[in-house]
Amino acid sequence: MTDIVIAGIGQTEVGEHWDISLRELAFHAIQAAVKDAGGLTPQALFVGNMLSPNLSNQAHLGALLTDYAGLTGIEAVTVEAAGASGGAALRQGYLAVKSGLVDVALVVGVEKFTDKVGSDVDAAIATTGDSDYEAVQGLTASAQAALLMRRYMHEYHVPADGFAGFALTAHANGAGNQYAMFQKAIKPETYAKAEMVSDPLNMFDMAPNADGAAALVLTRRDLIPSNWPASHPLVKVAGSAAAAGTLALHDRKDPLFFDTAQISAGKAMKQVGLPLDGIDFFEYHDAFSIYAALQLEAVGFAIKGSGWKLAAEGAIGLKGRIPCATMGGMKARGFPGGAAGVYQAVEATIQLRGQAGKNQVEGARFGLIQSLGGPASTAVSHILERIE
Amino acid sequence: MTDIVIAGIGQTEVGEHWDISLRELAFHAIQAAVKDAGGLTPQALFVGNMLSPNLSNQAHLGALLTDYAGLTGIEAVTVEAAGASGGAALRQGYLAVKSGLVDVALVVGVEKFTDKVGSDVDAAIATTGDSDYEAVQGLTASAQAALLMRRYMHEYHVPADGFAGFALTAHANGAGNQYAMFQKAIKPETYAKAEMVSDPLNMFDMAPNADGAAALVLTRRDLIPSNWPASHPLVKVAGSAAAAGTLALHDRKDPLFFDTAQISAGKAMKQVGLPLDGIDFFEYHDAFSIYAALQLEAVGFAIKGSGWKLAAEGAIGLKGRIPCATMGGMKARGFPGGAAGVYQAVEATIQLRGQAGKNQVEGARFGLIQSLGGPASTAVSHILERIE
Repeated sequence: MTDIVIAGIGQTEVGEHWDISLRELAFHAIQAAVKDAGGLTPQALFVGNMLSPNLSNQAHLGALLTDYAGLTGIEAVTVEAAGASGGAALRQGYLAVKSGLVDVALVVGVEKFTDKVGSDVDAAIATTGDSDYEAVQGLTASAQAALLMRRYMHEYHVPADGFAGFALTAHANGAGNQYAMFQKAIKPETYAKAEMVSDPLNMFDMAPNADGAAALVLTRRDLIPSNWPASHPLVKVAGSAAAAGTLALHDRKDPLFFDTAQISAGKAMKQVGLPLDGIDFFEYHDAFSIYAALQLEAVGFAIKGSGWKLAAEGAIGLKGRIPCATMGGMKARGFPGGAAGVYQAVEATIQLRGQAGKNQVEGARFGLIQSLGGPASTAVSHILERIE
Repeated sequence: MTDIVIAGIGQTEVGEHWDISLRELAFHAIQAAVKDAGGLTPQALFVGNMLSPNLSNQAHLGALLTDYAGLTGIEAVTVEAAGASGGAALRQGYLAVKSGLVDVALVVGVEKFTDKVGSDVDAAIATTGDSDYEAVQGLTASAQAALLMRRYMHEYHVPADGFAGFALTAHANGAGNQYAMFQKAIKPETYAKAEMVSDPLNMFDMAPNADGAAALVLTRRDLIPSNWPASHPLVKVAGSAAAAGTLALHDRKDPLFFDTAQISAGKAMKQVGLPLDGIDFFEYHDAFSIYAALQLEAVGFAIKGSGWKLAAEGAIGLKGRIPCATMGGMKARGFPGGAAGVYQAVEATIQLRGQAGKNQVEGARFGLIQSLGGPASTAVSHILERIE
């Protein structure tokens, strides 16, 4: 079996797309990715979506998007794993191509959050937690994150502005990403003065729910035409793994350890045969800053209780020890639910193609991307590699 | 690559399970399938579900069921393609094992429809059609089916009781299935006197929305222990294919031809190298009797406009030319949404194991199962084979 490569990518701006429908949004990303992939014709479509049945009254996105994109006849399916839906769709596309039964797979993540008011979106997102035991108590995703953050600050004596570095880094990087929802750097004072959402979690400790779509085309390397343009360097999917864990926070032995993040990243790295310091950048799932801290620890970039220090000390900047959220992350690029994991893959591909402009991580060869569903109830990890 | 086989199966009774939750329902099927598969340990879970986020306020079933079944650490994902979700989950499980990256995959379909009143369920199911253009007009699934049926009767001069054979066959077979919702044969007079739902579609032209869960364990044949019990004959997944087509009825060139059913069944048969008369029984997706007629035509068992005659002439009975709905089908076993396609696979496995009791199709070697999303906006086809 030859390598599996990302041959084309596409994305829409992340933001409030009140003027276009979910299908149009997805189509823009699909069209861009298919064009970017030259003449490759998709045989299968994997749609990463989190809450369209609930928020857009539209299920069956596989048929909807196949139809709307003029691809009728190919196979199509929606893949859902809460906030990790995009990563999970990539994983299914990868498995399909790996099976040898699908030559070219199209993966698209799409989400429309902002057609509904915030409280409806919060309620919908709460259905991705343990509905019978958490959502019924009013435990929203931000409340969960606040509980984790409070416990973390208590356990590890973290100061009030301990998490500021995550937002500062994300916004600094978002400034260089034309597709980001927020393209403006922020100052430490902005974080310090930010409105409290769910104490101790403030407005800058959480990513904005947004609309967006991202897509990519996967194929086997041996199917790439010999006249492939040098302007579209191929990026290999070198590692792919996923893990599901405990759904409810209250059922966890140690809520401050994201075991699924460790398991899936560990498996992916083992597939590549890569030590941790071989990873050149890390696209974590910073829907909440506490998630980012816990992922840095679970993956192994920091010891337990010190993930926040990497942000505080500038180690996650573009020139830091382990650059993170290099195109703005969930915080500044925005969090478009089931599209988020596909955005990560598209952004990592741009980095590995060496086309990230002023956000370029110099010499990047391996990028780790990790997509979470809830507080790591699901974690999907992929390692993308620049082909030399 | 060795064959991929179904090593274990499990199912719950189909009906109104008001006393147990969705997770418990799924767990019963998972537990039975894992036990049936001996000591094989699942590494991945594929959940077929259609409307849980909408009807049970619970998304993220991958993590929920992995957690509840005591399988934390494995990968898990929900697969949705409307009523074809179960077939699509089987397809994803198959691709995963075929990829060589997953040794043992657990596929579970689960749905809870009856916790909500019928009108809420109808509205939820309508989200699987084209929401912006169909559901907003009040076009429910049964209204769509009634339109198709009316047109079919007009085009092909079908008499008022022309579809009765589908219900009669299903109920006759349901009587021999201990898991079926309706285990009682019906008479032609019962069909003739049935209440009209959406003229010309009556109560017996549609399957009851029901609760249920079914599961199976897929693995590579070379991983089966040599002391595998003879009481659990292995069944091979010989063919697997899916197709997505036009979502809205009004966009179709010929609404009376289910092209996706033709495409996916044709691909699956080509994989096996099997002519149509090699198929010993056909589990179609008789959510509506008109669907059954159109599937018989699309797959090739009848010429266009004459699928209903196979039912009227008794050709779909257990001893007929092409036995269908051998364990009761959607009509008598019941229609548990995203579980339906997995029920089909479980029932076909029972047939191919030769354990269908008085419903046994004598000498069955190849069974075709086909799971539809909407009026064949998605069709997933599998051919299962008894291993000699």
